[in-house]
Amino acid sequence: MDVATAIRDMLVRGAPAIGISAAYGVALGAKQHWSEHHIAWQDYLLRDMEYLGTARPTAVNLAWALKHMSNIVQAMPANQPPFIPLLQEASTLHTQDAMLNQRMGALGASLIHTPTAVITHCNAGALATGGYGTALGVIRAAHTAGNLTEVFADETRPWLQGARLTTWELQRSNIPVTLMVESAAATCMAQGKIGWIIVGADRIAANGDFANKIGTYPLAIAAHYHKIPLMVVAPTTTIDMATPTGLAIPIEERTPNEILHCGTSTIAPQDTKAWNPVFDVTPATLVNTLVTERGIVHHPDANKLAELMDS
Amino acid sequence: MDVATAIRDMLVRGAPAIGISAAYGVALGAKQHWSEHHIAWQDYLLRDMEYLGTARPTAVNLAWALKHMSNIVQAMPANQPPFIPLLQEASTLHTQDAMLNQRMGALGASLIHTPTAVITHCNAGALATGGYGTALGVIRAAHTAGNLTEVFADETRPWLQGARLTTWELQRSNIPVTLMVESAAATCMAQGKIGWIIVGADRIAANGDFANKIGTYPLAIAAHYHKIPLMVVAPTTTIDMATPTGLAIPIEERTPNEILHCGTSTIAPQDTKAWNPVFDVTPATLVNTLVTERGIVHHPDANKLAELMDS
Repeated sequence: MDVATAIRDMLVRGAPAIGISAAYGVALGAKQHWSEHHIAWQDYLLRDMEYLGTARPTAVNLAWALKHMSNIVQAMPANQPPFIPLLQEASTLHTQDAMLNQRMGALGASLIHTPTAVITHCNAGALATGGYGTALGVIRAAHTAGNLTEVFADETRPWLQGARLTTWELQRSNIPVTLMVESAAATCMAQGKIGWIIVGADRIAANGDFANKIGTYPLAIAAHYHKIPLMVVAPTTTIDMATPTGLAIPIEERTPNEILHCGTSTIAPQDTKAWNPVFDVTPATLVNTLVTERGIVHHPDANKLAELMDS
Repeated sequence: MDVATAIRDMLVRGAPAIGISAAYGVALGAKQHWSEHHIAWQDYLLRDMEYLGTARPTAVNLAWALKHMSNIVQAMPANQPPFIPLLQEASTLHTQDAMLNQRMGALGASLIHTPTAVITHCNAGALATGGYGTALGVIRAAHTAGNLTEVFADETRPWLQGARLTTWELQRSNIPVTLMVESAAATCMAQGKIGWIIVGADRIAANGDFANKIGTYPLAIAAHYHKIPLMVVAPTTTIDMATPTGLAIPIEERTPNEILHCGTSTIAPQDTKAWNPVFDVTPATLVNTLVTERGIVHHPDANKLAELMDS
């Protein structure tokens, strides 16, 4: 399916955006299969959805959205055109995601009491979600409240989402942003100007460990060393109670070519061996605050997440 | 002077190589000034050397080499051609540096008792020194001794010295090397395969704090978090007893363009603000072992460094 290719090739990226795209992809797939096989369209569609689920292994929102859509597909009558109801469902997920982001933005911003600069990693903004953003949603809300002076954005090798997306998105919103290599983040912290580290998440395990873009883990370690609090912003659909700890989160490794080249330039000798894990896992012990649409969890652990998910 | 331009524009980089190049530059400058002003050549040369000293502020080897050459220039008779003796002096510094590297390599390797993989940052190899290398000298010696299985090389944004130089140098020496973005180093450590972090230094303060390529500090913090020892390898000419602590080390900031572009590709929106410090300072408390040509210092501090420099 084209949507699977779009996710695999990183045309669509960001955990919530991947989930939403997948939901729209299901609607489009249903339209095609209905036109070809009026009777067995559900079987064909569910097979496609299984394939779609393999497109990116780390983010759990994809699996969540597909499970949600799969339940709806299976409950639908086989003899009625499925496209419009599934499209409506995808659109609802999309709108809901943007609303959740607004709510998380307000909750997260309520924790930032005095004007400060913050660091963010990768892009957890409107370009990664249904709109507004998770980490960038908090940043937007804190900026509106007058409590955010500047964002230091990690460039985020190898895909440079920070350089290419976060700077663009924040500049468009007139939020002061300074780009740096992620290697400079610790020095930025040491200079005493950073009040919070604010990031999104691709999957949160039941004990609060979370996977996010490669580079989040060392950022969290450096924040801990400098006693700067780390805020993780993600909807509860990112929490996977079936994943007990971070150890059980599959980490996608992509082609070494992403490291051997930068843009159109070759940056390493031919035949260089390279290792390209694109996510890492940060233990819950390094998380000060998890912000979800259902509320704020300080120092998340298994008990607190179980309580949150039951709420 | 052309040598100052070569250092400023990063055609020559690596603290020891900068010092050696400066010494050769002094010899070349003496040749020119002698041919033009037989009497006042020393004054002209010393003025050039002052300018040369501003080419890169962080590395202390440049200042050391220039002070060394300056003492020699001032002691020379004004009426004799200075080129050959100064060329010989530069060549001696060059040969000595390679010999010191060999000695440090053996000393550092003696600390690695069982076969392990290591991480290095930037390039502290033959391409950064008079030959053999400081950090890469230890890596070479440990590999020869059969105690080094693999080197994980940080690509080292923004100049990519790891991707462009360290991989090339280690491949030429048949030492297994795997390239990664520096963001992946913490995950590499978490996987339990790294026995040592081995880096060079651009300046070591009297208390053991040290400046090195941006990204060394977060690497040291991550090593500390994972209880992996950090080895700093540098000749005593890198130790600056006149710099009391890391706070007093000037950190060079270079043009934002180095971050806004990668090779020939533009990687950020036009007019993006960027911050580009090219060195960082790691506190002595994160250093397990300092390897110099005069010996090994465990957990360096002001007393131990004073003792080392008096030895």
